[in-house]
Amino acid sequence: MAIDYKKELEAAARSMILVHEPDTLIRMIVRMIAHKLKVTHAGILLYEKSRQSYVLTVSRGIAGFKIPKGFARMGLDNPLISFFREHLDKKIFHDGALAYVDVKKAAQKKNLNPKTRKLLKALLYQMEIYSSEVCIPSYFRDDLLGLLLLGEKKNGKKFHQDELNFFVALAHDVAMAIRNAQLFKDLELELEKERSLFKHTTIALAAAIDAKDHYTQGHTSRVNNICMEIAKRLSLKNKNIFNQNLMEHLDTASLLHDIGKIGIPENILNKEGALDENEMKFMQQHPLIGATILSPIKELAPAILGVKYHHEKYDGTGYPEGLKADQIPLVASIISVADTFDAITTNRPYRKGLSREEAIEEIEKASGTQFDPEIAQAFIELYREKYLPTA
Amino acid sequence: MAIDYKKELEAAARSMILVHEPDTLIRMIVRMIAHKLKVTHAGILLYEKSRQSYVLTVSRGIAGFKIPKGFARMGLDNPLISFFREHLDKKIFHDGALAYVDVKKAAQKKNLNPKTRKLLKALLYQMEIYSSEVCIPSYFRDDLLGLLLLGEKKNGKKFHQDELNFFVALAHDVAMAIRNAQLFKDLELELEKERSLFKHTTIALAAAIDAKDHYTQGHTSRVNNICMEIAKRLSLKNKNIFNQNLMEHLDTASLLHDIGKIGIPENILNKEGALDENEMKFMQQHPLIGATILSPIKELAPAILGVKYHHEKYDGTGYPEGLKADQIPLVASIISVADTFDAITTNRPYRKGLSREEAIEEIEKASGTQFDPEIAQAFIELYREKYLPTA
Repeated sequence: MAIDYKKELEAAARSMILVHEPDTLIRMIVRMIAHKLKVTHAGILLYEKSRQSYVLTVSRGIAGFKIPKGFARMGLDNPLISFFREHLDKKIFHDGALAYVDVKKAAQKKNLNPKTRKLLKALLYQMEIYSSEVCIPSYFRDDLLGLLLLGEKKNGKKFHQDELNFFVALAHDVAMAIRNAQLFKDLELELEKERSLFKHTTIALAAAIDAKDHYTQGHTSRVNNICMEIAKRLSLKNKNIFNQNLMEHLDTASLLHDIGKIGIPENILNKEGALDENEMKFMQQHPLIGATILSPIKELAPAILGVKYHHEKYDGTGYPEGLKADQIPLVASIISVADTFDAITTNRPYRKGLSREEAIEEIEKASGTQFDPEIAQAFIELYREKYLPTA
Repeated sequence: MAIDYKKELEAAARSMILVHEPDTLIRMIVRMIAHKLKVTHAGILLYEKSRQSYVLTVSRGIAGFKIPKGFARMGLDNPLISFFREHLDKKIFHDGALAYVDVKKAAQKKNLNPKTRKLLKALLYQMEIYSSEVCIPSYFRDDLLGLLLLGEKKNGKKFHQDELNFFVALAHDVAMAIRNAQLFKDLELELEKERSLFKHTTIALAAAIDAKDHYTQGHTSRVNNICMEIAKRLSLKNKNIFNQNLMEHLDTASLLHDIGKIGIPENILNKEGALDENEMKFMQQHPLIGATILSPIKELAPAILGVKYHHEKYDGTGYPEGLKADQIPLVASIISVADTFDAITTNRPYRKGLSREEAIEEIEKASGTQFDPEIAQAFIELYREKYLPTA
C-alpha cells in the first residue's frame, strides 16, 4: 500500500477539525477518499436522529455506481446497521472494516451455526445492493455515527488488510471531526435562535409602545428602517464608522427609542392639541425614563445612549442635557434625523403631516443646527436616490 | 525512537478535538507530553492578544525545573518569539523544531555574518533561561499560536532528529485542537451573552410594567421567584414534568405575565377603590393583550400560553376562555398560584393585604376550585418548609 495517499489522507483528516460545517466537511471527505483511493464509488451514510435511520448523505463515483443522495437510507433493523451497532463485527472478524471477500469466505465455512450464516448472507446481500467492496464503520464512543461504503478499486485489485486497518483509523478521525462540526453547528443554531428571540422581543415591545401612543402607529419600525439605511450609507463613506456591534446597538436603540413613553401619563401622550408648558416638560422626560428602564441591561450600554440622547440637537439646544455636536453619541444623532422625519410627515389631530419633499427641505434647513450635517447629508442623499424605505 | 509513545501521543492528540475547554486541553497536552517523553520539564507559552505577549500557561516538571504558571512571559521582541514569528527558522535550520545543541553548533561556525551570530546567541540565552533543550513552535496558518518548551530527557540522552520531526507534526495537531477549542469557547461566551441580554431585557420590561401599575411594585419579580421555586419542587416529585426548555419558558412567562397591562387605561389600572363591572371587563383583557403583544415572537409560544391563561381557574370559571383542569397549560397554572398569593398579600389603597399565613390558608381552600391541587400542594409545602422567597 502506497504510503503517500495514507499520509495525504491523514493530513487532510487533521485539517478537517476546523471545518465546522458538517455538510461541507462530509462532502470534502468523500471527495477526497474517492479521489485518492481510485474506487468506483464512495458514499457515507450518516445517522439522522429525526428519521431514526442512516441516510446516504454524500455519494461520489463513476456513472452507474453513484447512488442518488438522500435516495438511500438504512433503518435500524438493516443487517449492516445492526451488525455494527451491536458490535457483532468484533465477534466474527478481527477488526471494524468489513470486506465483501472476507464475509463471503466466512459464509462458506462449514459447521457454521444457522443464525450466523443467515446474518452473513444478509450482509452480503446488503453490500451487493450498494455495490460495496468495503464497509467501514465510524464510531463516536460506542455510537455508530455513520458508515463509509467503498466500491471496487478502478484497477480491479483487492483491498489489503493494512489498507482496511488504515481506513478504520481514518474513520475514527472522520467521526471525531464530524461530531465536532455537529457540536459547533448546534451551538451556532442556538446562538441564532437567541439572537432572533431578542430581536423579536424588542420589536414586539416597540409595537406595544407604538400602540399606546395613538398617533404613532408604525412609527418605530419606520424609524428603525431609516436608521439602518442611514448607517449603511455612512459606512459606504467611511468604513470604520460602524462595526457589526455598533450596527446592532443602533438597531436596538432605534427600536426602543420611545420606550420611555411607557412612563408618560396617557392624557399627555394622547392629548388632542398642542401640549402646554407643563405637559411638555413631562413629555420631555421620555428619553430619560427610557434610559432608566433599560439601565440594568449592561449589555445595552451603547444602545441606551441612543435612547437617552435622541432629542439632543447639534447646536446644544436639545434635551435632556443640551449636548453639542460631537458630544452627542452617533447612534442618538442618527435616530434624531429619522425620528424627526417620521414625526413631521405623520398626520396629527391638530396638524396635517408634511409631504416627504417638504420634510426633506426641513431636514436640510436644520442641518448644522438641529442635526449633525454629515448625517443629514447622508439622509438627504438616500431620499434623492430613492433608497428611503417608504413603509 | 520508540514507536509506542508516538502512537499514544498521536491517538491522544486526535481525541483532543472534542475537548472544548482550552485550558483543560492545554493542561492535558502538557501533562501527557511530560509523562510520555520523560523530560525534566515541559511548558507551553500561548499568545495572549490582550497582553501582546506569549504567556507560560502550563508548566510541568520536577522541582527546580518547573516555572511558575503565569510568571514567565515573552514579549513580541523576545528573540525566540520573533525567530518563529518571522519564520527565520526555515532559513537557518531545516525544520520547525529548535534543539539547543543544533543552535550551539550553528553559532560556533566560522564565517557567520555578525547579525546571524548575534541572533543565535540570543536564542541560546533564552533557551538557557527556560532550561529548554528543545523549542517547538505551534502555528495556525501563519500565526504563531504558541511555543512548546521541553527540558532534558531524564535519562540524559539527546533528542533525535526524527523525534523533533514528530514533535512538529504533533504541535500542528495541538495548534488545531487549541484553535478549535478557542472558537468553541468564543461561541459559548457569545451565546451566554445573548441569553443574559434577553433575560435582562425581560426583567427591565417587567419592571417598567410594574412601575406603571402603582400598586404592584416588585410584584413581577416576586411572582417570578415563587414560580421558579414551585417548578423546582414539582420537578423533585416528578422528574419528567419539566425540561430545561419549559423551565426557561416559565421564567419568561412569569416575568411577562402582566405585560398586557401596557394596554389598560391608567384610570382603570390605578383606580383607588374596587373596579365597576365595565372597568373589570377592561382589566380582564390584560392576559389577551399580553398574548397579542408577544404573539409575533414564535420562539416564545409556550411562554405566551402562560401569559394568556394565567387567570384561568381549575374549575373552569376563569378567563379569558374558561379552560378547565388539564386544559390549562402547566406554566399558566403555576403563575396563577404565585400571582394570587402575591396579590392577596399586598396592601391596596382600599384593603390591607393578608398575612402570609392567612394567604396560604386561602390558597389551600381554593385548591381544586381555583387552583390545580398538585401545584397548590407544592406551593403550600414550600411555605411550610420555609423555602418560599420572602423578598
